[in-house]
Amino acid sequence: MSFAVFLGVVSADPDMLQDVCVADLASKVKVNGFPCKAAFNVTDFFFDGLAKPGVTNNTLGSLVTAANVQEIPGLNTLGVSLSRIDYAPFGLNPPHTHPRATEIVFVLYGELYVGFIAANVLVAKTIKAGEIFVFPKGLVHFQMNVKRAPAAVIAAFNSQSPGTLTIATALFAAKPTVPDNVLAKAFQIDAKEVEMIKAKLAPKS
Amino acid sequence: MSFAVFLGVVSADPDMLQDVCVADLASKVKVNGFPCKAAFNVTDFFFDGLAKPGVTNNTLGSLVTAANVQEIPGLNTLGVSLSRIDYAPFGLNPPHTHPRATEIVFVLYGELYVGFIAANVLVAKTIKAGEIFVFPKGLVHFQMNVKRAPAAVIAAFNSQSPGTLTIATALFAAKPTVPDNVLAKAFQIDAKEVEMIKAKLAPKS
Amino acid sequence: MSFAVFLGVVSADPDMLQDVCVADLASKVKVNGFPCKAAFNVTDFFFDGLAKPGVTNNTLGSLVTAANVQEIPGLNTLGVSLSRIDYAPFGLNPPHTHPRATEIVFVLYGELYVGFIAANVLVAKTIKAGEIFVFPKGLVHFQMNVKRAPAAVIAAFNSQSPGTLTIATALFAAKPTVPDNVLAKAFQIDAKEVEMIKAKLAPKS
Amino acid sequence: MSFAVFLGVVSADPDMLQDVCVADLASKVKVNGFPCKAAFNVTDFFFDGLAKPGVTNNTLGSLVTAANVQEIPGLNTLGVSLSRIDYAPFGLNPPHTHPRATEIVFVLYGELYVGFIAANVLVAKTIKAGEIFVFPKGLVHFQMNVKRAPAAVIAAFNSQSPGTLTIATALFAAKPTVPDNVLAKAFQIDAKEVEMIKAKLAPKS
Amino acid sequence: MSFAVFLGVVSADPDMLQDVCVADLASKVKVNGFPCKAAFNVTDFFFDGLAKPGVTNNTLGSLVTAANVQEIPGLNTLGVSLSRIDYAPFGLNPPHTHPRATEIVFVLYGELYVGFIAANVLVAKTIKAGEIFVFPKGLVHFQMNVKRAPAAVIAAFNSQSPGTLTIATALFAAKPTVPDNVLAKAFQIDAKEVEMIKAKLAPKS
Amino acid sequence: MSFAVFLGVVSADPDMLQDVCVADLASKVKVNGFPCKAAFNVTDFFFDGLAKPGVTNNTLGSLVTAANVQEIPGLNTLGVSLSRIDYAPFGLNPPHTHPRATEIVFVLYGELYVGFIAANVLVAKTIKAGEIFVFPKGLVHFQMNVKRAPAAVIAAFNSQSPGTLTIATALFAAKPTVPDNVLAKAFQIDAKEVEMIKAKLAPKS
Repeated sequence: MSFAVFLGVVSADPDMLQDVCVADLASKVKVNGFPCKAAFNVTDFFFDGLAKPGVTNNTLGSLVTAANVQEIPGLNTLGVSLSRIDYAPFGLNPPHTHPRATEIVFVLYGELYVGFIAANVLVAKTIKAGEIFVFPKGLVHFQMNVKRAPAAVIAAFNSQSPGTLTIATALFAAKPTVPDNVLAKAFQIDAKEVEMIKAKLAPKS
Repeated sequence: MSFAVFLGVVSADPDMLQDVCVADLASKVKVNGFPCKAAFNVTDFFFDGLAKPGVTNNTLGSLVTAANVQEIPGLNTLGVSLSRIDYAPFGLNPPHTHPRATEIVFVLYGELYVGFIAANVLVAKTIKAGEIFVFPKGLVHFQMNVKRAPAAVIAAFNSQSPGTLTIATALFAAKPTVPDNVLAKAFQIDAKEVEMIKAKLAPKS
Repeated sequence: MSFAVFLGVVSADPDMLQDVCVADLASKVKVNGFPCKAAFNVTDFFFDGLAKPGVTNNTLGSLVTAANVQEIPGLNTLGVSLSRIDYAPFGLNPPHTHPRATEIVFVLYGELYVGFIAANVLVAKTIKAGEIFVFPKGLVHFQMNVKRAPAAVIAAFNSQSPGTLTIATALFAAKPTVPDNVLAKAFQIDAKEVEMIKAKLAPKS
Repeated sequence: MSFAVFLGVVSADPDMLQDVCVADLASKVKVNGFPCKAAFNVTDFFFDGLAKPGVTNNTLGSLVTAANVQEIPGLNTLGVSLSRIDYAPFGLNPPHTHPRATEIVFVLYGELYVGFIAANVLVAKTIKAGEIFVFPKGLVHFQMNVKRAPAAVIAAFNSQSPGTLTIATALFAAKPTVPDNVLAKAFQIDAKEVEMIKAKLAPKS
Repeated sequence: MSFAVFLGVVSADPDMLQDVCVADLASKVKVNGFPCKAAFNVTDFFFDGLAKPGVTNNTLGSLVTAANVQEIPGLNTLGVSLSRIDYAPFGLNPPHTHPRATEIVFVLYGELYVGFIAANVLVAKTIKAGEIFVFPKGLVHFQMNVKRAPAAVIAAFNSQSPGTLTIATALFAAKPTVPDNVLAKAFQIDAKEVEMIKAKLAPKS
Repeated sequence: MSFAVFLGVVSADPDMLQDVCVADLASKVKVNGFPCKAAFNVTDFFFDGLAKPGVTNNTLGSLVTAANVQEIPGLNTLGVSLSRIDYAPFGLNPPHTHPRATEIVFVLYGELYVGFIAANVLVAKTIKAGEIFVFPKGLVHFQMNVKRAPAAVIAAFNSQSPGTLTIATALFAAKPTVPDNVLAKAFQIDAKEVEMIKAKLAPKS
């Protein structure tokens, strides 16, 4: 193959499509991941959407800004992505799981209490700027800002699209709704309390 | 290779270890999955622990009996396992995820309301004896017995050890405990309610 | 992502397609597995075709009813499927392999002599209602009803489409036909015997 | 890492073990594949056992000489191996499957009739010196020398240990033996014929 | 399934598409690998393009002739391919890597000095006709003909399309060009030497 | 399993070993990756070694500080890791590949000219603080500081140990040494120039 490449007698396109498969996000055909675009350019491998802090003036005081295959088409089939998470003072990224990836965070600034739960054992720690923590694939985890100042992390995932299952909203804000008796029995609370939580977590319109 | 095997001039052991890797559950060396036993026999591929209904006289009215690599060492490296789930009248297998497998259930008897949540949409249905339902890998799901009679299912998983993350107990019965303010903010309840749920879900001693 | 989901400002569809990829069985584009449908509903994860015994009045006295991705589109990319196998009295599910999956059977009723062959060693046992047996991926295996009563099993596979290679029919009923001298030499029989077996195993028209 | 390597301040061993994992064939601990040796040398990646034709004076007139992880420890975890297959005039490599690999053959000399069976369709062809043919993973296939002269191929597999399931010997020469009634019903022959084939295929002592 | 196949009541096509996915090289839809053709025939699994020596009258005195998925559509999704490499007297297949596969070579004729580099350690050897050598996935390697006579090898890869990154041409003949100061600093040479190498390695028009 | 966990009648250890496999870096047994420790604690998932800038006063003016499985044992089997790369003014992380991972960088501060080469096409761009760029798995890439001020990035990899092949040092500073005629012919330079580069790139003692 070296020689063929050497004399340039092989067009770049087929080789390109072997080395990368840039997502065709607009394709009518949907596959696991995305089909590949016929041509791509450098911007398919670039993203500047994590440069500025996200707006965190919401109930939880946190915002996740994703940089996955939908923002960076070049990530298609490459199995990695990033996110930036910003935290208001005492803000919380609530308990959630990523069905398709392990997460590893690097603290940009601030101080966070972070942890995951494995077999009902909490593995948690307070981490500061420049420190790293790992959340194993599929396990429930959270991060809470423990200071009066904002905080931010860069999170890396070994999936082009790790997915996110936020526990409280999945159970109490799904539509159609999860029956009260399922939630009441699971959390050992009564239907009235279930309804109250559902009301609080319902998407604002 | 056919000829070598034909004349039996190759000892069976090395080939065996290529076709199967029966778990050495007692090995001092721990690896992802299990090391292989030097020799095995037919019972390593057999299990009779799902023949009888499980005892369901507990708070939730359900019992999961596993038939994974720890019960069937022959499953090591083969990527599949089963469970039997028994339900008391109106019993619940509460919301949980399997970090390492998709689950597909076949109803042995009874009638269950089953569902999973994907991107905050509940996908749920009532299923009867002989019917099948799928719970995609890593998504939160549950089954509830909707009749006054017992029910049971056989569940298949595409992992030798799918793992189970039971939402309510992971969050409210972990040790060390998940801080009240994390749970209060996530579920939009106050610390008193968090403490109440923790008390109810605490392992009985 | 938790926040985005929380306020519902992300449409469900893209996340859905990340969590599941329901097979578009009618797609003109064929890929390994199947492309994904743009939308799906609960019936894509449900199947009732294994509820009733299959009709076993055939030469072998067995019938396999599949519940794989073609019956349950929601299984696409999820790597698991089921089958129901029914056996007439003394019926046989003849020696075969599954190129893409390990099989694990749970006996619904009856009594079967089951086994697989690894490196020319037969690993076999008689199993009864409620008992489990494993057939490792790619190895030849069979089940025979050893009683005068019908039998049935639920079989689980770690593939959305395990495939089946039935030894006798693949070799003696393929079209075009496998040359007599290949089969004669392989089984150390003469061409006349080969022709006789071919005649017996030929598909009935 | 470039700098660390540049100044040689990182010992080679750990990096080595990341790039390759040379099989420790003598390890007491057995894992899927093999544990890695602490050190290795160039001969772990070299083999000269395919240079000479194999001896084919046996019933089938063929001999497979393997060059897999057991002959080339350096192949461990690398997912590829070779074999050389020699054929006496009119010799046969009888119908078999490789549970763990696709096979692709390159004819060194001679002329062979080769084929595989997919869904009961025979896909077969006669191939000559320098020609290539593919046998997809897990499907039954064979090669027969159609000339009065010897023939040989180099076969490549995408597994360090593809495994081989030779149909006739697995079914009729397994020990313990597969019951006559299983084989009789599967091949639609009588028990006497089964016994005859078993006698012919039994390993010579 | 055995019975269904036995009576031929299942059309071959769907099963076929499960066992093989022959590349539709002309498909407008591009995916990782290739979509599958609706129908295929025996020639999709056959190739005769490696039968004759390649023309090696070029600067390096070597030629790689590929037999991958683009020449053999049947290889799609099967994870294996071959190449033939021919060497003029003293010809060189220059240092390169295969991003997606381990390579294992079998010498057809001639004598070659071959090697790979792992963690800055050269693992190299002279090999002759019939001998085998392994180049682990992703590591830089080369082969040089050390005799005045031509040489040739068959190379096997565990990828349907291993890809090739030829070091010298990638760095010094890329377009647009890699900046002189990057190459000068990396190789500790001055810009004039960089320009000289670029001129020598530039594709001939 | 939910019930068993609920009553705490299953010890945490076996489940733990299923969810995570913390590397036993000191194990005498070496496997692909690492064996698992019998017990672990929170520090196995934490690392503070990327908090401070690395010392870049070396020939290239760059330093890579790794945070992979050898620094964070909890990453074992989880398929992700980080590095911090620091650049002196005009410092270069020279052309290299990662055999086992795609890399995605987030700029902490400074301004870098970064690029990768695919099929002899350079895909390159200047990126600033907060911006992201992707280097596909196995492709040669580099980063150069284009300012008189220091720069730093966090790099994420989808491997617990991506490996690094630094082109110039692998070819010109390997031991034993790559023969002059191989390098001379590959780069179209004479042996004297090869010797000069080797001298410059030789590890300082």
